[in-house]
Formats: sequence, structure tokens, C-alpha cells
Amino acid sequence: MLDNAPASDFTFSIRARDGAARLGEIAMPRGKIRTPAFMPVGTAATVKAMRAEDVRALGADIVLSNTYHLMIAPGAERIAALGGLHKFMRWEHPILTDSGGFQVMSLAKLRKLTENGVTFQSHVDGSRHELTPERSMEIQGLLGSDIQMQFDECVRLPAPREDVERAMNLSLRWAERSRRAFGVQPGHAAFGIVQGGTDPLLRAQSAQALAQMDFHGLALGGLAVGEPQAEMLATIEATTPHLPDAKPRYLMGVGTPDDLLQSLARGIDMFDCVMPTRAGRHGMAFTRAGRMNLRNAKFADDPRPIDEAATSLAARTYSRAYLRHLVKGGEILGMMALTEINIGYYQDLMAGARAAIGQGRLVDYIAEVQEGWARGDA
Amino acid sequence: MLDNAPASDFTFSIRARDGAARLGEIAMPRGKIRTPAFMPVGTAATVKAMRAEDVRALGADIVLSNTYHLMIAPGAERIAALGGLHKFMRWEHPILTDSGGFQVMSLAKLRKLTENGVTFQSHVDGSRHELTPERSMEIQGLLGSDIQMQFDECVRLPAPREDVERAMNLSLRWAERSRRAFGVQPGHAAFGIVQGGTDPLLRAQSAQALAQMDFHGLALGGLAVGEPQAEMLATIEATTPHLPDAKPRYLMGVGTPDDLLQSLARGIDMFDCVMPTRAGRHGMAFTRAGRMNLRNAKFADDPRPIDEAATSLAARTYSRAYLRHLVKGGEILGMMALTEINIGYYQDLMAGARAAIGQGRLVDYIAEVQEGWARGDA
Repeated sequence: MLDNAPASDFTFSIRARDGAARLGEIAMPRGKIRTPAFMPVGTAATVKAMRAEDVRALGADIVLSNTYHLMIAPGAERIAALGGLHKFMRWEHPILTDSGGFQVMSLAKLRKLTENGVTFQSHVDGSRHELTPERSMEIQGLLGSDIQMQFDECVRLPAPREDVERAMNLSLRWAERSRRAFGVQPGHAAFGIVQGGTDPLLRAQSAQALAQMDFHGLALGGLAVGEPQAEMLATIEATTPHLPDAKPRYLMGVGTPDDLLQSLARGIDMFDCVMPTRAGRHGMAFTRAGRMNLRNAKFADDPRPIDEAATSLAARTYSRAYLRHLVKGGEILGMMALTEINIGYYQDLMAGARAAIGQGRLVDYIAEVQEGWARGDA
Repeated sequence: MLDNAPASDFTFSIRARDGAARLGEIAMPRGKIRTPAFMPVGTAATVKAMRAEDVRALGADIVLSNTYHLMIAPGAERIAALGGLHKFMRWEHPILTDSGGFQVMSLAKLRKLTENGVTFQSHVDGSRHELTPERSMEIQGLLGSDIQMQFDECVRLPAPREDVERAMNLSLRWAERSRRAFGVQPGHAAFGIVQGGTDPLLRAQSAQALAQMDFHGLALGGLAVGEPQAEMLATIEATTPHLPDAKPRYLMGVGTPDDLLQSLARGIDMFDCVMPTRAGRHGMAFTRAGRMNLRNAKFADDPRPIDEAATSLAARTYSRAYLRHLVKGGEILGMMALTEINIGYYQDLMAGARAAIGQGRLVDYIAEVQEGWARGDA
């Protein structure tokens, strides 16, 4: 009975290990998060082209939403006055919010960075905003976010080592300020973010410093920004030994299905990425038989569903011919269906990985999945 | 028991009358159609921004799809080879297809009209096509359409009387050829289309001629093309006395909620219109309190749902503030939600009208509905 009672605080339990991989569970008042977990991205308080209840039905325990976008529109104070982000977007399960740091780097105009924080212009309407560690945590609190990320500075890679080091050190100082601003919020969690580019020494230094702070989990930021997969994996391997074993590890903004498998095999517990949703809006399906570009003429007369064994109804029931017709015509239903198929595939992939870790056969599972992609669908 | 068995042929039963209005039911092998009925438009084999099962759940017994669009892409022969339109679009209930005549007039380029039919270029890809009465019925048969419309010529209004008369007479000759081409298809139906602009004599002449042909139902075409509502209603009143009482009457392409109420009060049984779906993609909600433009700033902090008494979950649960946020951001979920709200409203409106006819209180019902629109939502 106690097992089904809502958790009163944030806990992370590791249930099984397979090599470096971990099967775990985060318990929080708003629900459990089975790890390794993929978090669909709901940038502007919506997982694009999906209803929240359908995201849930595909197996997602948690979604991510973006502080940068929500502070610009509709505004954090407005969402708070409306009862918080969960109520606003009709998703009652856990939500992780990023801190805005990455989007300030990638989207905003006229950035000005100081020790205190960043001032910038919105890419949407040119309005002026400021983000500091304190304001970022305040916004995430106003949203009612369950897992709140420290404010950090991301640098574009490749960058000179001294820039990466400077940003890493600034992010550590901001980590302390973020953690202090978060304060004590029972049932909510604050995560620190390891920076340091692809430099193993900087990463180790960042991880060791963050491990001393009282964060509930730790993330690897600043990866999957264009570097080769091997560099990303090497960076993970250089970092995880310096992370506390007992805390969840979140690889931000990653990635392809193979990125996920390779990373969870190296001890990563949580992921988020726009790839399945964005690809779904552009006619691409992720499947057990690899990627399918539904714009391809070869699907025009193909009566088969995408995958009869998939969780999502869309993958099991729409013919490829119909999906191609919808995609070619720019029909919204095509975006809806492919987004559902892709989120479903990512969740199925994580469910398979969790089962495999539990059975101590993750290496075989990854080999089987990769074989399926290579075999394709002839 | 017999009542629940699938119908083997097309039948139309009138269950109650209230003034000129009729409460009825069409029975066909693929399902029953409660009349007055509103048919959501699924132009290119999809009711835009909605899953077919969700359209059904809102109360739709039948959807419309467009011959012109489907013959261009993906092609009628292709859909037939894939098992027909129902299977293609995952909608197992009745489908009505138009004949392509209206879209040839309104969309196609380089039209050339002869006694035999129309040749034209696709507005999508410039490909050349021909539609004749025989080819239109053949396409509708290939699609597996349950209710197939005769091929007709529509003229843009206003037009000189002689043009309207010429097109009306051509449409009558095409009606005969369409009916002959339809042949005998148990369980399927062919409808003729009354033309004649807003000229009562031409309408009467057209209706009388069509009444002599062996159609399963009759439609009024060429209306709601920009004329004032009063002219449209006068044309309905001038036409219905010449239509067989025992056959369903379908007013094509109409219209606003008020158009529907006014027309069903004058004996119309079936409607279709892109208005609820198109408006939904442009931020407009149809509600019991009238139209709401969700782009309006007054909704930015409004925590209320659109209508707690509506059938659709979207109308009952999303806050207006959230819908405005989605619409302002161009989010697909905004289009999905407002389309659902609007199709739901149209279905609720028809359900209310059917109940009112059954109770002999249609006049009161219409007055109450209009009062709700006028009162708004203060």
C-alpha cells in the first residue's frame, strides 16, 4: 500500500544494474519516473501536435518544458496566476523545466552576459528580458516545475578551451546561486548541470564541484550540439565516474535512438530531445526497422502499417500509403500521427531498455535493436 | 433485434415533424445517419487536424470527402487498390463524396467546359484531368463512397439569368447521365443536385425534373456562395415544395450555426461546411455564447473553459488562457483543440435541434440558441 501512496519528497532508487547501466525509479508527489526515461519536449507548454493525455498514454512519465519560451509567452507570473504549468497544459504528472540558459545561447538576440546573468531580446517579439540564476529558479518555481535546472552558460562548440573553461566556472558559480535560490521545496528537485565541452578534465572538474553541492540530480549539458557521437560518448565516460552514483543523471538534449541506447549503457538515466516531435512534423518516422521518410514515393501504394507491434495506435493502424498522402499534402493529421508514432517509438525503446537492464541483457538488446534498424523493412 | 441489424439498402425514415422541419434517420449498411445531420468535411481524406475516431466520438454519423482533391492526390484508382476510402482514412461509417463540380469551378485552372464534361488543370500540380458525369461517378465508386453526388455545373453568383439557366439545364442532363452511370449499387445512394441560382422559377424547374429521376436524395447546390442569408432561405423555401417529401434533402456547403438552424427549420436534413474546421485552424471558436476569437487579449488571463456543458473534452477542460496561448504561438494543438470544439459544437447544435423537433419545440429551441449567442459570455 505504501508503495502506491504518492511520494512526499524526491527519491531515486536504483533497482538493477547491467554494466554501467541503471534501472531506476524516481518517486515524486506528482508521480513516478521509470528510468532510463525519455522526456518528450513540450517547449511552449505543449508537446507539439499532441494532446497531453495521448503523450501519457504512450508511456511518458514526465515531459520537459522551456523556461525561455514560457517567460516570453505567456509569462511565468501569468501561468502562476492561472494555477501553474500542470493545470495550464493539462498534464498532472512530473514536469522538468530547463533554466533558459541553452535557449538564450541558441535563440535570443543581443545577448549581454555578465557575472550576474544575461540580458537579451526575445527572438519572438524583440522584448527585453533578464535571466539570472535567481530569476530562472523563480520562474521555474512560478511554473510549479517538479524538476528545476540550474541556470548555466552554454558555449557553442567548437570553442577555444579558455572560453569553455570560463563558461564552466561561471556555470559553477551560477549553480551555487541556483541551488541557494531553489531553497527547500519538499517534493520538488533541483538539478545541477555539468559543463566543460568535450574536455575530460574540465568535465571532471565541473562534476566534482557539483557533486559537493546539494542537488537532487545532475545533468550533462552542452552536448549533442554538433559533435560526433564518439566524442559525446567519450565525454559521458569521462564524466560519470565523478558523479554521485545515487543521483539520477540526465543527458540534456539527446538524441537519436542510438544516442539514447549508447548513453544509457554508460549510466545515463534521463533524456530529452525535440528529435521525435520535430521529425514527426517533417514526415519522418522512427521505427524498429529504422527511419522512414514518408515523403518517399515507395510508400505511395504500401498498405502496411508502420509497425504492428508498436504501442501507438497510429503506428499500428494507419497505412504507410495514407501517411504518405497526409505528409505530401501538408495535412495536420500527418504531423499528429507521425509525432505519435515517434514519441511512441522512443517510449517503447526506453521500455525495452529498462526490461533488458532488469534481465541483465542490455548488450544483447542493443544489438537486436541495431540489427532491426540495419535490416530495415524489405 | 432487426432494428440493430445493419441495413442492407438505403432507407430514409421521417420520425417526427415540427413545422417544415423533419426528424429522420437514414439507414445504410455502414451505419445510421441521424437527421438533421451535420457532416464534417474531410476534403483530402482527413477532417483537418482531427483523428477520425475523435470526429466520431463528437457525434458525427457521416463525413464528406472531395472527389476533386482525391482524384488529384492520391488518385481514386490508388485508393481503390488500397481497399477504398473508408479503410484509407480509418473511418468505417458512411461517407458522402461530392462530384467535383464545385471545386472545378472554384479551384481548378484552365477549365474547358463542353456538353461532355470539363477538362482542367489541378490547382496543386498543374496536372491535366477530365471530369464527366460518368468519370465522376466512377471515381466515387472507386472510393467506395456511400452517398455519391451527381456531377453538376456550378456558376458563380451573381451571374446573368441565361448563364444560370444554361448551367441548370446542363446539370439536369448530367444528372441523368450520373444516375445512369451509378446504376444499381445496393446499400449505396446517389443524390441529384438542384441548381438555378437564386431564381425561384429555375429552382422549381430543376427540382421538378430531378424529382422524376430515381435519386435516393436531393441536394441544393450553388448556395452559400456569397449571397445574403435571406436570399438563401428564400431559395430553400421556393425549392422544397418541389422536392419529394420522402427523400432526404441536403443543403451543400452551408454554413454558419444560424444558417443551419434556419435551413433545417425549412425542411433541410443534411449539411456540410468547412466553417467549423477552417475557423478552428484560425483561432475561432463556435460556442453556445457565440463566436470567440481566441486571439483576443481579453482571454489571456481567463481561466474558464470554453463551455463546461459541451460534448467535447477540449471545450470542457482547456482554459481560454491556454487556448489563446496556443493560438498566438501557432501551436498545432491550438488548431486541434479548436477544431474539436467547433465540430463538437456543430454536432451538439444538431443534436439539440433533433431533440427539439421530436418534442415539437423547434421554434423555442432556435430562440433559446439565438439568445445564448446574443447574451455572449459576460
